Amino acid sequence: MSVITIERKVLEKNDELARRNRELFAKQRTFVINLVSSPGSGKTSLLEKTLGYLKGKLKIAVIEGDVQTDLDAQRVARFDVPVAQIVTNGGCHLEAKLVADALDRLDLAGVELLVIENVGNLVCPSNYDLGEAMKVVVASTTEGDDKPLKYPAMFRNASVLIINKLDLLPYLDCDINALKRNALQINPSLTVFETSCRSGSGIPEWCAWLQQQVSKGYNVKPSTLT
Amino acid sequence: MSVITIERKVLEKNDELARRNRELFAKQRTFVINLVSSPGSGKTSLLEKTLGYLKGKLKIAVIEGDVQTDLDAQRVARFDVPVAQIVTNGGCHLEAKLVADALDRLDLAGVELLVIENVGNLVCPSNYDLGEAMKVVVASTTEGDDKPLKYPAMFRNASVLIINKLDLLPYLDCDINALKRNALQINPSLTVFETSCRSGSGIPEWCAWLQQQVSKGYNVKPSTLT
Repeated sequence: MSVITIERKVLEKNDELARRNRELFAKQRTFVINLVSSPGSGKTSLLEKTLGYLKGKLKIAVIEGDVQTDLDAQRVARFDVPVAQIVTNGGCHLEAKLVADALDRLDLAGVELLVIENVGNLVCPSNYDLGEAMKVVVASTTEGDDKPLKYPAMFRNASVLIINKLDLLPYLDCDINALKRNALQINPSLTVFETSCRSGSGIPEWCAWLQQQVSKGYNVKPSTLT
Repeated sequence: MSVITIERKVLEKNDELARRNRELFAKQRTFVINLVSSPGSGKTSLLEKTLGYLKGKLKIAVIEGDVQTDLDAQRVARFDVPVAQIVTNGGCHLEAKLVADALDRLDLAGVELLVIENVGNLVCPSNYDLGEAMKVVVASTTEGDDKPLKYPAMFRNASVLIINKLDLLPYLDCDINALKRNALQINPSLTVFETSCRSGSGIPEWCAWLQQQVSKGYNVKPSTLT
């Protein structure tokens, strides 16, 4: 049995478990995003800003995925939301099974938005469906404008791109228009936001969009509606 | 046959091929570093600075690893050094076999330093020996000070830590002393450099250290000398 056959079986098994997660989310009427990026792009900071802004407006829960430590879950828990930590112990991405296990520890009743923060990795998480409504990829201006071309799968499989750390642009050689152009070349249907977790710019627009998605009841991928 | 058994076999096969690469490097008297980091930490910029500084002082060759594109190889080729590009086509790390294939296209005769720039990924490349003398991990100040704790394997398996983008510190919440403390907690034997590719600070110290390693003829891991 070849390695490729094994990998295909792992992905098939994952897709089946993701389908079950998606059914559960649909039943609970929970809109779910899978937040992905390189390490240090600001996923957790963005999540903190989002939780702060949407406090009292949306009922939110969080699943934190990390290779090690529960540092991010501790940061998120300060916002008084239900949070479950997954530690992958060296694993480079979340899988649907790990999310299903975390859901056993998380009561979704009344939860309108579930944010799954994936392991910081711009490659491996792109292949794994967790049952989310959509992947949201965060790219920091500090990473440069060429990343969509160099790591295309993640940008191709995401529905939303958040360009973060906008406040650092004056000190960088990053051309934000080139960054957007490169991302849209890979995936023309990306919805793009520009944010700074330091200044707070772009956070209201991003949060308003999230509220819109929740009110639309968009919690099942069109492809699974057949 | 379980997935774990397959993974173990992949790693064993890789170790065998890495051993052969290491023998070749020893025979050619080439000092080899495996440059690893998150996407956008500045590996290629650091390499450009290093090539510029060491021009006429060391004979250097480069192997570039990328998921897609040869953008980095193009940047490096401007410095008039031999460069071979590996495109992994979605693969999240370099393996010894890919490096062996690249070596077929690269004449190591007289090359004193070979830099292998790995795929931008702070998780997967940590498990794969390429035959290098040592792994050098680049961490950008923009990624925050908690990354060694959250991605410990890479910091544990590296011999050198380069803290890059020092010029951005005034605009960040990153505590560089905490970053160093966290890294040294994971791996107390790390040699640490602090660099800025924008201002050039730290580049002479890093390059002097590289020259020292080359002159010491340190090109085989102690563990393989038995």
